[in-house]
Amino acid sequence: MSDLPARLDPPERILMGPGPSNCHPRVLQAMAAPIIGHLDPAFLRIMNEVQGMLRTVMQTTNPLTIPVSATGSAGMEACFVNLVEPGDRCVVGLNGVFGQRMADNVGRCGGEVIPVEAPWGEAIPPSKVRAAVAGGNVKLVAIVHAETSTGVRQPIEEISAIAHEAGALLLVDTVTSLGGHPVKVDEWGVDACYSGTQKCLSVPPGLAPISFSPRAIEALERRKGKVQSWYLDLTMVRKYWGDERTYHHTAPVNMIYALHEGLRLILEEGLEARWARHQRHHDMLVAGLDAMGLSLLPTEEESLWSLNAVRVPEGVDEAGFRRHLLEHYSMEIGGGLGDLKGRVWRVGLMGHSSTERNVQLFLHALREYLG
Amino acid sequence: MSDLPARLDPPERILMGPGPSNCHPRVLQAMAAPIIGHLDPAFLRIMNEVQGMLRTVMQTTNPLTIPVSATGSAGMEACFVNLVEPGDRCVVGLNGVFGQRMADNVGRCGGEVIPVEAPWGEAIPPSKVRAAVAGGNVKLVAIVHAETSTGVRQPIEEISAIAHEAGALLLVDTVTSLGGHPVKVDEWGVDACYSGTQKCLSVPPGLAPISFSPRAIEALERRKGKVQSWYLDLTMVRKYWGDERTYHHTAPVNMIYALHEGLRLILEEGLEARWARHQRHHDMLVAGLDAMGLSLLPTEEESLWSLNAVRVPEGVDEAGFRRHLLEHYSMEIGGGLGDLKGRVWRVGLMGHSSTERNVQLFLHALREYLG
Repeated sequence: MSDLPARLDPPERILMGPGPSNCHPRVLQAMAAPIIGHLDPAFLRIMNEVQGMLRTVMQTTNPLTIPVSATGSAGMEACFVNLVEPGDRCVVGLNGVFGQRMADNVGRCGGEVIPVEAPWGEAIPPSKVRAAVAGGNVKLVAIVHAETSTGVRQPIEEISAIAHEAGALLLVDTVTSLGGHPVKVDEWGVDACYSGTQKCLSVPPGLAPISFSPRAIEALERRKGKVQSWYLDLTMVRKYWGDERTYHHTAPVNMIYALHEGLRLILEEGLEARWARHQRHHDMLVAGLDAMGLSLLPTEEESLWSLNAVRVPEGVDEAGFRRHLLEHYSMEIGGGLGDLKGRVWRVGLMGHSSTERNVQLFLHALREYLG
Repeated sequence: MSDLPARLDPPERILMGPGPSNCHPRVLQAMAAPIIGHLDPAFLRIMNEVQGMLRTVMQTTNPLTIPVSATGSAGMEACFVNLVEPGDRCVVGLNGVFGQRMADNVGRCGGEVIPVEAPWGEAIPPSKVRAAVAGGNVKLVAIVHAETSTGVRQPIEEISAIAHEAGALLLVDTVTSLGGHPVKVDEWGVDACYSGTQKCLSVPPGLAPISFSPRAIEALERRKGKVQSWYLDLTMVRKYWGDERTYHHTAPVNMIYALHEGLRLILEEGLEARWARHQRHHDMLVAGLDAMGLSLLPTEEESLWSLNAVRVPEGVDEAGFRRHLLEHYSMEIGGGLGDLKGRVWRVGLMGHSSTERNVQLFLHALREYLG
């Protein structure tokens, strides 16, 4: 017993990295509510409420709108394994880590990747997508709305029109945008969409909201073979979330509690007001950086409000500043991934972390550090 | 805003079904601790502590002992997708729902299932496994230690010897046994093992502890192709849990907090004492049932302590009793699955739910209902 670890005592951080973001105390409290069974009548009502609120936040009426019982990356995999079969041709936008991950998923499903590239820090030009689908027989077009590795926001509507004209499904990664930026699944014609709870929804990591359009469901129902993942097989999972309530796996009950309260907070604030808040604090950050002669990696038009990739000035110790922030301010920001390692700081202003106080404290610390 | 669901107010249940079990208040409190980043130095220490405690509970020194970031069924899938490649011959024990699910997993990986069957309610005879591996060229033998659908406990050691003599890996489902029954990964020669947090560990559902032996790691490293699941690909996941700390996906931070405290509670109680407690309350239940002329589906030798499949007496409304328990006692038990639907009650005595008080209250309610 002498080597029993001490009781947990995690530090109180300001989370301004690429996620997780801070949680409202009400979310953490909800998560600690008494556990009940995943088939309890009281839990089934909670599931219905979560689905209803998720549809509002995702701006969709899709019946198949659910939180997958794992983190955002499993939401990505859920979309691909259900829609892509061996030999399916998939156009994938590659302009950061998460586009690459999509391509990796397509490959693991036996699909063929038709890459559409843009430099890291830039959006994918719709014209390139148009050229890629021109080859014909494309099953789906996959694109990242909010590239967490570069801070780029990808306009969706024109690409959606191109995909649908070509008879393809549109699959969109909204991990870092949902709850912080407008994500309009129905209006934009998104057929499959996934997100994560730990970004702009400000719920701990552990669930991946997804939504499938009727066209995506049709594709699912027309599959030739079984979905390669048992856990993520939506032909079964949808019967647990649907009227049948057929047991599939045990839902992560307390995580669903947390999501319920997180969604309630979002609807209390109002979607429009929440988006405006994210934009306002992004603008405040950009103005402050600008005053120091610093800038973001993407252009202003293509910048996310929720994730800001700040160019590290020449000669400054990138990792040193992150250590300084953690030690002196108990504040977390992210470093660059892949080719951007050492070249950018990733400053998240997501959900509960997107506050004036956080922006100003960060700017103060940065001014101080740069001297 | 008028249709905003009310704040959560889940009922306080006594959870005596097939899982989830009740959580100790300390586990729920731990889960509500402030969230920190999944690469925070403080979180990395917590991960190390969780791994250390998991190894003790699983009775192993396997370095690759981690909680998969999803529920128990994903733990099952993690074991199969990493170890089974197309064409691999797998002997699978089929004597309940969860053996069938294993076979389904093998099929989705392109493996060939060599079934070894026993009637639901009985253990798999080792002689049948011996006959099945005699065909040669068997990659792995997969067996359920604790069949949650039937309450059967499967002895592992003889089957382990048979598997290893045949040059096969041994894969074991310990979802409903870990933390309630002895599970001795190293002593028994288990090569891959998975469990869930919401059974005898008494942590909310959302994580799946797994352990891979050095032989299983070798098989993983000798794979011909990529693991078909990106999310569960242990060649990547192990680098996050290992010294490299390479980012793969965002760990479900607060669920890991809960597991940390759940494991601390287990080690405080002591493994031997905890196993004895589970046995004691199972014995108490069986004695009480016996006094009413009722019995379990499996023989006493093959019965689990953690999950008791009680035969429903002729003429008794199976579902009616479960509704009665929920309404009058706020107590949940489970019904039968598959062929056992309507024929058994599944009474879980797992982890924090395995108490004298719960057993006696259940017996009282049953006596009362049967009149």
